[in-house]
Amino acid sequence: MDTNLHVYNSLSAKKEKFEPIKAPFVGMYVCGPTVYSYVHLGNCRTFISFDLIYRYLLHLGYKVRYVRNITDAGHLENDADEGEDKISKKARLEAVEPMEIVQKYTLDFHEVLDKFNNLPPNIEPTATGHIVEQIDMIQDIINEGFAYEVNGSVYFDVETYNAKFGNEYGKLSGRKIDELMAGTRDLDGQSEKRSPVDFALWKKASPTHIMRWNSPWSVGFPGWHLECSVMSSKYLGDSFDIHGGGMDLKFPHHECEIAQCKAANHQDPVKYWMHTNMLTLNGARMSKSTGNTLLPNELFTGNNDKLEKAFSPIVVRFFMMQAHYRSPLDFSSDALMAAEKGYLRLMGALNDLEELKPAETTTAFDLEEWKSKCYAAMDDDFNTPILIAHLFEAVKFIKAAKDGKASIAATDKAALQELLNAFVFDILGLEKEEQQASGDDELVDGLMKTIIDLRLDARQRKDYATSDRIRDHLQNLNIVLKDSKEGTSWEKE
Amino acid sequence: MDTNLHVYNSLSAKKEKFEPIKAPFVGMYVCGPTVYSYVHLGNCRTFISFDLIYRYLLHLGYKVRYVRNITDAGHLENDADEGEDKISKKARLEAVEPMEIVQKYTLDFHEVLDKFNNLPPNIEPTATGHIVEQIDMIQDIINEGFAYEVNGSVYFDVETYNAKFGNEYGKLSGRKIDELMAGTRDLDGQSEKRSPVDFALWKKASPTHIMRWNSPWSVGFPGWHLECSVMSSKYLGDSFDIHGGGMDLKFPHHECEIAQCKAANHQDPVKYWMHTNMLTLNGARMSKSTGNTLLPNELFTGNNDKLEKAFSPIVVRFFMMQAHYRSPLDFSSDALMAAEKGYLRLMGALNDLEELKPAETTTAFDLEEWKSKCYAAMDDDFNTPILIAHLFEAVKFIKAAKDGKASIAATDKAALQELLNAFVFDILGLEKEEQQASGDDELVDGLMKTIIDLRLDARQRKDYATSDRIRDHLQNLNIVLKDSKEGTSWEKE
Repeated sequence: MDTNLHVYNSLSAKKEKFEPIKAPFVGMYVCGPTVYSYVHLGNCRTFISFDLIYRYLLHLGYKVRYVRNITDAGHLENDADEGEDKISKKARLEAVEPMEIVQKYTLDFHEVLDKFNNLPPNIEPTATGHIVEQIDMIQDIINEGFAYEVNGSVYFDVETYNAKFGNEYGKLSGRKIDELMAGTRDLDGQSEKRSPVDFALWKKASPTHIMRWNSPWSVGFPGWHLECSVMSSKYLGDSFDIHGGGMDLKFPHHECEIAQCKAANHQDPVKYWMHTNMLTLNGARMSKSTGNTLLPNELFTGNNDKLEKAFSPIVVRFFMMQAHYRSPLDFSSDALMAAEKGYLRLMGALNDLEELKPAETTTAFDLEEWKSKCYAAMDDDFNTPILIAHLFEAVKFIKAAKDGKASIAATDKAALQELLNAFVFDILGLEKEEQQASGDDELVDGLMKTIIDLRLDARQRKDYATSDRIRDHLQNLNIVLKDSKEGTSWEKE
Repeated sequence: MDTNLHVYNSLSAKKEKFEPIKAPFVGMYVCGPTVYSYVHLGNCRTFISFDLIYRYLLHLGYKVRYVRNITDAGHLENDADEGEDKISKKARLEAVEPMEIVQKYTLDFHEVLDKFNNLPPNIEPTATGHIVEQIDMIQDIINEGFAYEVNGSVYFDVETYNAKFGNEYGKLSGRKIDELMAGTRDLDGQSEKRSPVDFALWKKASPTHIMRWNSPWSVGFPGWHLECSVMSSKYLGDSFDIHGGGMDLKFPHHECEIAQCKAANHQDPVKYWMHTNMLTLNGARMSKSTGNTLLPNELFTGNNDKLEKAFSPIVVRFFMMQAHYRSPLDFSSDALMAAEKGYLRLMGALNDLEELKPAETTTAFDLEEWKSKCYAAMDDDFNTPILIAHLFEAVKFIKAAKDGKASIAATDKAALQELLNAFVFDILGLEKEEQQASGDDELVDGLMKTIIDLRLDARQRKDYATSDRIRDHLQNLNIVLKDSKEGTSWEKE
């Protein structure tokens, strides 16, 4: 199968034609959360971006296996090789078992992504679920001569790797070994590592470290970078199509992943590396220590003084789609208010289109050209802001048709509806705002029919006092009556 | 802390006073699902029963750590030691990776239990997440002399265990070794086991077996019984309070769990074994092969010809609570219809109570005695049908008070509301049926006010044709008007 999709590959720093290794199959791996706290909005942006990418690949007809992991062990503070495991630390602070922390924040993560209407990945593997496989891969890397054991810990030997593979370490992030060496401090020469750029594959557990497993080297735990190499190759093969994550993961995490895989089996693991950009809040980096933070649930409830009101998850999703995934995006109450207006206009247009009476011909809109432009936007590295601009051209046209300034033929109406549904719901992953219970809608319809009937009666007997009173009553309930030749209809304001 | 709770212990076949090993802490382990198909209603009954038990323990003030596992590997067909892994088999049939099967049905399981308003457990460990720990425990059992290796597989040696521990194997399920021996067939003497009652701790993988891990004995996979011994002891200690599951798990699964734990560390692992009874459908065992089955989602949508209509998850939960967890329960459309009526009466009474005008004194109801009876029911091994009978005494009293045939004092009203909320929502885990959007409720109220107003007008001008027409209109919408001295009120039928 052939499509016109082009994706930006962080490895080549260029847009490249998307040609999966074994079309129509696509293997996609995205680095998931470390489940030691409530999921961060910045992380949500990454996962929503890859949800969009997943949805568009499915829409194009690819058979995608989407794997996103849960890091439930081994991720030390500051991404370094020393310090405490993030989950163990939280468990110690909250005085519970680490796996209770994992359960609590995994549930939160799933709930939030579900609200954002993200599709679940096909496989969601955990680090603790792949300890045996991680031990196996470390053994492979040792056997290949790219790792060494010191006091029960095992480190990756970056210099030996670089000597063998033409100085590849750094090729994704653009870092040079010399600069990395200059930037590190060997704390009183106490490190076990041969070189400060080496990184841990297995760490011997200190007596107080809670999460620990038996291994050939020590009772310990795997280095954080290892799990993604192990789980991506287990479920997608030694070479697969897309590996994604936030841009902050390029170094050291993804750089180390490449080195581990190549050391173990001499193949480049990933064809297209994709990275999402940052989310800022009111122009500044989000950070717990400065208080410049916002949790997803605060957004949905409005319970944060940086917000004027609550915003629905779908409006927030729409807001995120208005920026390209590789551009930075700034969050603010005002920007969300504007996005909400845009979202409501878009949804309104979809309803209006449904009610448009088809004409003989379509005037003032070239459907084929518009369709091509929409696909061209998405094929250009998933350019959602351009797509949305095109969607609003259609909104404008629908408004003109509603106002009698343009017209649409029946076949074009059906085609436009189908395309809008595909782009708005299937690809962008938006939803109509929660419908009221339909039973109640029927009741309101029934009551309004009764009232309109009574008003007609009153007017027929020239009892204008009553008919006016009815109109006033309804106005208080934000309901407007519209009289026309066909009778009286009503609308909520 | 001391409570009056008594629980039925399957091990002693008696009700025993509940005395946790280390109060106020309670460790509870429940065998979770094997995620190779949509969750079964019978399984749901087990998990809803233990949710009730969990909720009541929390209500009494215990600090409960509730662990429920996910079996995502090692569960062979027919619970035997030969045959195919249930998940691998499904993966082969659907031509996907086993972990895709695990993901699909884990999501379904969580979604269904969430609809039933089950609280999530504190830890939800997986079999594949504890391969290292399972290997460690097998090694311990071998070291203690209760297991042997044959051709890369490891088996538990039941006879040696029994010789050492006074013929304990069978003490939970009441089976005798002689009978078990007589009931087994050694297929042409080809079994690797020394005795047909021995069971597998580790199985060497056949070349076609997909899920496999490195171990000291072979590339293979753990026996199904092992994971629960490993995960319960890891998260709850070598001896803990409650172990639960469906009664079909008593043998061999739970019997083997006891043997494994005791062999490894010479302690009885569990103080109280609790087992839930079966769910039948229209009087017969549920079974896919006979077509006598019903999936939770078919219940919620009504999409199964054994049902007259759809039933909400909360009505189904209420229905299940009407039977004791140790009694069999038969599912049928008629029984659910009856439960729905009961549920609505109960919810109606809660609303009526809220609106009752307090009197000087309470007549015709002894609140303290009623409260004692409710707690006595729950303290008697979580006897929900008796509790519900007492709840309906309160319903009857509320109806009498509403009709002016009884009265309630203000303090009693507050106390009764608090108790009913605790029993109905916190303990039984019921919920009010999904509220209509409150905006819509207000709109309906406003419209009804307008209509009642217009009807009053019509009657004042003796236009009875109009006032009758209004009444008829509303009757079609299932709304009844009630005239009284204070004016006209309305009710949905």
